[in-house]
Amino acid sequence: MTTTQQTDAAQNGPLEGLVVLDLTTALAGPYATLLLAGLGATVVKVENPASGGDSSRNNSPYFGGLGLTLDRTADTDMSVSMMGRGRNKKSITLDLKQARGREVFLRLARGADIVVENYAAGTADRLGVGYDDVRAVNPSVIYASISGFGAQGGTGKAMDSIIQALSGVMYTAGAPGGDPIRFGLPVGDLLAPLYAVVGVLAAKVNREATGRGQHVDVSMLGALTSLMSIEPFDAFAETGLPLRTGNEVPRLAPFGIFRAKDGFIALCGPTDTFARGVFRAMGRPEFGEDEDFATRDRRVRHASELHRLIGEWARDLPRAEVVAALSAQGVPAAEVLEPAEALRNPDVLAREEVVELGHPQHGATGLMGPGVPIRFSEASARLDRPAPHLGEHTDELLSGIGGYGQGEIAELRKSGVV
Amino acid sequence: MTTTQQTDAAQNGPLEGLVVLDLTTALAGPYATLLLAGLGATVVKVENPASGGDSSRNNSPYFGGLGLTLDRTADTDMSVSMMGRGRNKKSITLDLKQARGREVFLRLARGADIVVENYAAGTADRLGVGYDDVRAVNPSVIYASISGFGAQGGTGKAMDSIIQALSGVMYTAGAPGGDPIRFGLPVGDLLAPLYAVVGVLAAKVNREATGRGQHVDVSMLGALTSLMSIEPFDAFAETGLPLRTGNEVPRLAPFGIFRAKDGFIALCGPTDTFARGVFRAMGRPEFGEDEDFATRDRRVRHASELHRLIGEWARDLPRAEVVAALSAQGVPAAEVLEPAEALRNPDVLAREEVVELGHPQHGATGLMGPGVPIRFSEASARLDRPAPHLGEHTDELLSGIGGYGQGEIAELRKSGVV
Repeated sequence: MTTTQQTDAAQNGPLEGLVVLDLTTALAGPYATLLLAGLGATVVKVENPASGGDSSRNNSPYFGGLGLTLDRTADTDMSVSMMGRGRNKKSITLDLKQARGREVFLRLARGADIVVENYAAGTADRLGVGYDDVRAVNPSVIYASISGFGAQGGTGKAMDSIIQALSGVMYTAGAPGGDPIRFGLPVGDLLAPLYAVVGVLAAKVNREATGRGQHVDVSMLGALTSLMSIEPFDAFAETGLPLRTGNEVPRLAPFGIFRAKDGFIALCGPTDTFARGVFRAMGRPEFGEDEDFATRDRRVRHASELHRLIGEWARDLPRAEVVAALSAQGVPAAEVLEPAEALRNPDVLAREEVVELGHPQHGATGLMGPGVPIRFSEASARLDRPAPHLGEHTDELLSGIGGYGQGEIAELRKSGVV
Repeated sequence: MTTTQQTDAAQNGPLEGLVVLDLTTALAGPYATLLLAGLGATVVKVENPASGGDSSRNNSPYFGGLGLTLDRTADTDMSVSMMGRGRNKKSITLDLKQARGREVFLRLARGADIVVENYAAGTADRLGVGYDDVRAVNPSVIYASISGFGAQGGTGKAMDSIIQALSGVMYTAGAPGGDPIRFGLPVGDLLAPLYAVVGVLAAKVNREATGRGQHVDVSMLGALTSLMSIEPFDAFAETGLPLRTGNEVPRLAPFGIFRAKDGFIALCGPTDTFARGVFRAMGRPEFGEDEDFATRDRRVRHASELHRLIGEWARDLPRAEVVAALSAQGVPAAEVLEPAEALRNPDVLAREEVVELGHPQHGATGLMGPGVPIRFSEASARLDRPAPHLGEHTDELLSGIGGYGQGEIAELRKSGVV
């Protein structure tokens, strides 16, 4: 293989050639198929023409010719949610409640490698587009379901805050005895799609070995609760270590978030070496020999006093100066950034882990959205094509993957199937 | 293929037959290889005999014959961290700072499909066990690196709190203008391994198509910041929607966390239908026609009043009763659980998304840890073998995968290489 060929191949995503039928809406499911699209798969987003497609097309705010607006001002305006989640996907409208809609879906499914859905448990089967329906026309298909509580689970609405509440995660931040804390980052929504992609790819690897497809079933509650169980919160509680300690962690002192003159800084100094670095940065190297602070056990015992002294040192200095002083002494430290700042970190942008969102008609938006935070040496993962408008690729997909003629397509459109 | 054969195959993990060399320590890397092990890969954990192996073997608390203790009381005691993260892995000791240690490593690497490391950027290369070293003996290897800031990034210590601080996530919870909030769930550590597993499996799929291996490079900061950028925090800010709203979300009112008599409940009622359900549950159906609450726009305008009324209703009732009343009206609602309760949710246990940890000598521990939160119809994902003690499989692996004779093994042991 020549170098040129290698270079060409490295322009492709690692999943180039895989076809994904995407029945997902809202956030959890669409993030799973966004990752697959970013990894190079062809993702066909199936949307209901009757309801206006994916509900996140109607999430305010919108972007269009007037920039960012709370209300839609023109047909080409697109929700910021959809601009992020719809990238590198193709959109086909299809009314699955009509028999002919299901028929078209199953015809497309014959050529698909993967189907992903995030209906409430049982809904896909009732619609006639469940795993058994697809397997009947495509025995080696990999069919992934993302639901609130798993395929056999309840049908309760699985919203992010409900999943957070049931997972225990709301009691991991904040002060002992304080109110639970809802996370703004929707971890209830966003972990299941990551596990679903792991499941789909593991099933693909398995299919190479066995020739068989299968059903992959991921629960939002299970995904977050499972991740929760990695930290031994249980064991902490049993041995008397507090689970919640607010922004400081006494058992790792000096360790915590401290107020500086113009914001906050994070500092992690759990070892003797790091602690001495902190003392030198503060201009108090003698603390390293102090009876109260010389060893880890003593620092833990005198954590409040130690953290108070650090707070006094930091509060009158700019946060950049505090971090520079700590870093110069080899202590892990960082400014606590606001999201708008964090999303424009040049290192993160250079690695395309966060990228600028584009609008299909209006181009650059100045708004940031997720890239694929994985770099491959011999392939490219990227999200570089703007999200489609509802049904933008209906004709192309019906005639291409579906093999329908122009007359048939016109008829499907006339009868409201597409 | 007969039904019996299918059933046998379904007992295997989807990654059965893949061999993973695991150079990781602490949390982020070991969670990636734990997932691969749970999916059926053979994971060989390489540990330094000189330093006592993976640092998380020395994380208090420990479990042993006396149960849970803060200090180690016997040689067979094992840290709770290791009991969770080491499951279904094999442990070999190997001093990579010795030339013969590297030699053994590269001999094992010849037969490996995947290598995973989470040294600081550049360290694996300096040790002579980087991607180029392994590729020289195994051209189709997939080699994954997890680091704080990516392969070309800084060498700053990437601790969870530092990653959280730089990602912006600390400003997504809590009240507007309030202090940043450190998450107890270590999202700074735990997202990168999920993306690394996605990357490794995508590279494996790619290798089936192209025959080539590659380097997969994931940054902890990039992983978390990328996930952060999915919610349009930017667009919210520009359009005047507050990013942080505490435990209530006025723009979705009624929506939030409310205090009940014996704890808290979460409630999500952003639509007219849900809102009316909330009013009926409160015994105030007339609010559905109230001037202030009848439509979404009005509820948003009068959100504080609405949330105050819900708070008054809920505060004297047991949380189970509040949730039952809301659920009976079709409103998404849940009790806010503490981690110890959440980790014992029968539905989550039934799906093995959380499982009980076992000790290699002392069996059942009563402590919970992560399962693989993915269910496969034709394969089994499970974490059912206790974590190994340091070097427990050294001889087996040297003679098996390595092909070393008994004399050679004795000599390697004598010279401290293993």
